[in-house]
Amino acid sequence: MKLIIGDKNYSSWSMRPWLLLKHFGIPFEEVLIHLYTPDTKSEILAHAPASPGKVPTLIDEEGAATWDSLAIAETLAERFTQHALWPRSAAARSHARSVSAEMHSGFGELRSNMWMNIRASFPGRNATPAVLADIARIEAIWTGCLETYGGPFLFGEFSIADAMYAPVTMRFNTWQPPLSEAASAYVRRITDLPAVKAWIDDALRETHAIPYQDVCP
Amino acid sequence: MKLIIGDKNYSSWSMRPWLLLKHFGIPFEEVLIHLYTPDTKSEILAHAPASPGKVPTLIDEEGAATWDSLAIAETLAERFTQHALWPRSAAARSHARSVSAEMHSGFGELRSNMWMNIRASFPGRNATPAVLADIARIEAIWTGCLETYGGPFLFGEFSIADAMYAPVTMRFNTWQPPLSEAASAYVRRITDLPAVKAWIDDALRETHAIPYQDVCP
Repeated sequence: MKLIIGDKNYSSWSMRPWLLLKHFGIPFEEVLIHLYTPDTKSEILAHAPASPGKVPTLIDEEGAATWDSLAIAETLAERFTQHALWPRSAAARSHARSVSAEMHSGFGELRSNMWMNIRASFPGRNATPAVLADIARIEAIWTGCLETYGGPFLFGEFSIADAMYAPVTMRFNTWQPPLSEAASAYVRRITDLPAVKAWIDDALRETHAIPYQDVCP
Repeated sequence: MKLIIGDKNYSSWSMRPWLLLKHFGIPFEEVLIHLYTPDTKSEILAHAPASPGKVPTLIDEEGAATWDSLAIAETLAERFTQHALWPRSAAARSHARSVSAEMHSGFGELRSNMWMNIRASFPGRNATPAVLADIARIEAIWTGCLETYGGPFLFGEFSIADAMYAPVTMRFNTWQPPLSEAASAYVRRITDLPAVKAWIDDALRETHAIPYQDVCP
């Protein structure tokens, strides 16, 4: 199984399935393609011709491609049933799928104003009212889940829902918006998870830079 | 089981799970809440307090809520295994999940410039280059699927992937952008599906209007 990802410093969508595979100990080969180069799209399409040429893309042993972080997560959950990629309880799973889908299609203000750049530090910047509204909803989701299921992760043990929100925790480390104590503690727990630490370590060692994402105008 | 939806004329995200339930003959109670009224959000939250107060939301017999069209689709697929909500073959299912997720998180230009309004007709309007780029990708997805799996729907029989794209076919009926013959034929097949016809008939009979979506500036 091959997972095609972008630069670990910047590629928030790639981080999600990579964390799942790493955290649950599912063996895979990583193929890292630098983003925003003239060859990025053609290099991805060489692996997955039917895809839109974006990362992440999973290629299984038969060559079947799955693209998009959530589609990959569902595909892995269905295949590796020995791991609780989704919570085992049906009600918790419905809830986990809901907040994961909400992340998948929403929070555009946060995503465009507080992009993921693990090496950078832009504390207090870009916290517009619209971004703060996105953050308020994220805090409500996290707090609701942590209270309902008792932590330490959103649905108890680490699951796809945490992987979906992990890039947000990286954004919060970089941009440091005001957060509740409960949300800050959750960000620290995700940051300290071994699989997340491994991703961050790799990001810190990368030398390929995307200049326009390294400055906050 | 209750499905909370918005106005059928306008609510593209509501249309998806409603079509799945209707097409596969899964019994449910429909709760229609008018969109963009002062009470819309509080009426939805009364049914699903943990949700963001948006449609669609599914409430099961135990009161568990699932919100977001794709989360509802996955929940239904998992529960009603007697129906092929996703294609039965693992490779086709990976492909179907990929194009469904792509629709779920993307095509923002199409969605904001060619909104769903089943009663309206705005032929040839708002076909900006960015919208046409979205449409080109949709045509590539449809053509690829129809050729690979042989039609008449994206993965053979009607599945979640078709439900995810059904609102796009409604937009194409309203805005009539230039389409390939294969794409036009697919739009007609979706439009003629009994479950889709039932949704359209209901939309045509609705009297609640959202004035700013009824004009194309």
